[in-house]
Amino acid sequence: MPGTTPEQAMRAALAASVAVHGTTSPNPPVGAVILDAAGEIVGTGATAPPGGPHAEVVALREAGERARGGTAVVTLEPCNHHGRTPPCSEALVAAGIARVHAGVADPNPKAAGGTERLRAAGVEVVLGTLGDEVATGPLRAWLHAVRTGRPHVTWKFAATLDGRSAAADGTSRWITGEAARAEVHEFRSHVDAVVAGTGTVIADDPALTARYPDGTDRERQPLRVVVGNRDVPAGARLDAPDVLHLRTHSPDDVLKELTDRGVVDVLLEGGPRLAGAFLGAQRVDRVLAYLAPALLGAGAAALADAGVGTISDLMRLKVDSVRVVGGDGGDVLVDGRP
Amino acid sequence: MPGTTPEQAMRAALAASVAVHGTTSPNPPVGAVILDAAGEIVGTGATAPPGGPHAEVVALREAGERARGGTAVVTLEPCNHHGRTPPCSEALVAAGIARVHAGVADPNPKAAGGTERLRAAGVEVVLGTLGDEVATGPLRAWLHAVRTGRPHVTWKFAATLDGRSAAADGTSRWITGEAARAEVHEFRSHVDAVVAGTGTVIADDPALTARYPDGTDRERQPLRVVVGNRDVPAGARLDAPDVLHLRTHSPDDVLKELTDRGVVDVLLEGGPRLAGAFLGAQRVDRVLAYLAPALLGAGAAALADAGVGTISDLMRLKVDSVRVVGGDGGDVLVDGRP
Repeated sequence: MPGTTPEQAMRAALAASVAVHGTTSPNPPVGAVILDAAGEIVGTGATAPPGGPHAEVVALREAGERARGGTAVVTLEPCNHHGRTPPCSEALVAAGIARVHAGVADPNPKAAGGTERLRAAGVEVVLGTLGDEVATGPLRAWLHAVRTGRPHVTWKFAATLDGRSAAADGTSRWITGEAARAEVHEFRSHVDAVVAGTGTVIADDPALTARYPDGTDRERQPLRVVVGNRDVPAGARLDAPDVLHLRTHSPDDVLKELTDRGVVDVLLEGGPRLAGAFLGAQRVDRVLAYLAPALLGAGAAALADAGVGTISDLMRLKVDSVRVVGGDGGDVLVDGRP
Repeated sequence: MPGTTPEQAMRAALAASVAVHGTTSPNPPVGAVILDAAGEIVGTGATAPPGGPHAEVVALREAGERARGGTAVVTLEPCNHHGRTPPCSEALVAAGIARVHAGVADPNPKAAGGTERLRAAGVEVVLGTLGDEVATGPLRAWLHAVRTGRPHVTWKFAATLDGRSAAADGTSRWITGEAARAEVHEFRSHVDAVVAGTGTVIADDPALTARYPDGTDRERQPLRVVVGNRDVPAGARLDAPDVLHLRTHSPDDVLKELTDRGVVDVLLEGGPRLAGAFLGAQRVDRVLAYLAPALLGAGAAALADAGVGTISDLMRLKVDSVRVVGGDGGDVLVDGRP
């Protein structure tokens, strides 16, 4: 379509990055679109798994000669360093690109400088196109990790309106509905690691795999991590060689171990004490609260011991969205940040 | 405005009834609009306090001779019985009304029969105009009371996303924001009675009055009711002669006492045990859950002991609405029915 605007192209680039979200760590999941001089999309790409080409290079290959005089629209500022692949800034210059739109600047000091390199070669560079959308999309965890040196942690919990994650007898299947559970499995397939405490493993015997609604495993599985000093019971669904068991209660110890393994994006799935430890240590970056429109009146709370003793220390969330999952009567998802 | 549709007129009648909601019990808060033969609104009325005229009569007085050949649009089927006022059906016939639209039928066997009386006099009657909206509006509690013989009970609670209504040290001001608290005060001004347990009275020292945001009392105040065997502490804000103290823990005893006092619409404001007793006895008809986007991890739960022991007995709500109160980052209100 000739006359594609940079914003439309950025949405297409974002969509391309969504498709590879979870397959690129420790590299960022970037999406790129090449418009020819007339504004027609002639190439689309996304970051390949580590060692493979970056998004810009994939898109440029598809565009070929039509890239000359055109525009590259990329979710992340093109890199300027020789890693396992040559700098994308050079590839863009070599292809004859006249203008670059980037969603967010690269906060990585090793890779930054792409904009300067491009401008020095006479390429016009616009930073911040759909910046907020891009920053909260697939790049979110990676941007956080580059800025803080720690993986991004999403704490997900499911509870009733009165905050219970299990009934008095410990049963908890199912509090939330199918649509919410399907979202969680989809989410698992995009993160690098899923973390649960030994208490949850012993009580609920979760598989922590990413599955389709029919129960079959998805193609991409996160690293499964168990935290705590107790043993995983023999015969548990998690009693498998590809599970990482970290015998600690320290969130920073857990995150250090995961960083060493290239993990950027973590999904913390409880239980209440482990979540409390992470929240209390300010190591939760996103909260996904799936609240079932239901009441229990007894049973385990979703969260314990986060270090809050009085109301003035209440942990307020900055709310990014509130929505009903699965149509009328579905669960309420509150998506926020501590 | 000539050509007003029955639906438009019903919305105006509903708005008129909202204005008197809370002032009419044990009579229903009804709204009525009279359209002249050309479809212009020539009269609007709502139920006066007990002993005063019904909505239709108020609206007919305003319309005068212009009612002749016109349409009466009433939220509730016009009554057909001689109570403290003559039957409205007779008044409509006498005024020469040609057509009546009613939102909901009158389930009260004493008052019903208005439609037959009107039709016998040659008046066309249409039942069910905006029926669902009318049934869930100001008439909701009264319809429930007529059908069940019990007052309608709304349980309102405020909690964090992890279901806590107070911090570990008992402090709870404020979990929810100003907009949510203002809604609760508005709600109090429309109900007949506000009920709280002695535990809540002792812990929180609530006034249970309906106040404006600046703290001044609203014109209309509900009956304030304390339930439980403990005494209200001397000097408590509730230690006043116009408070009804019911020394029982039985929801049905409470509701019987309130029915005897003409109460139709009850707002139950906790605490967790009293709410649990009402829910366990299936005496909660509406749940208003104000959930602050915040976490505590410790402190009293919003609900206790509702008689649910295992997940298959989970009390699911039929959700009527989910909305954010007070704009971005505000509290989430889930409005549902057990």
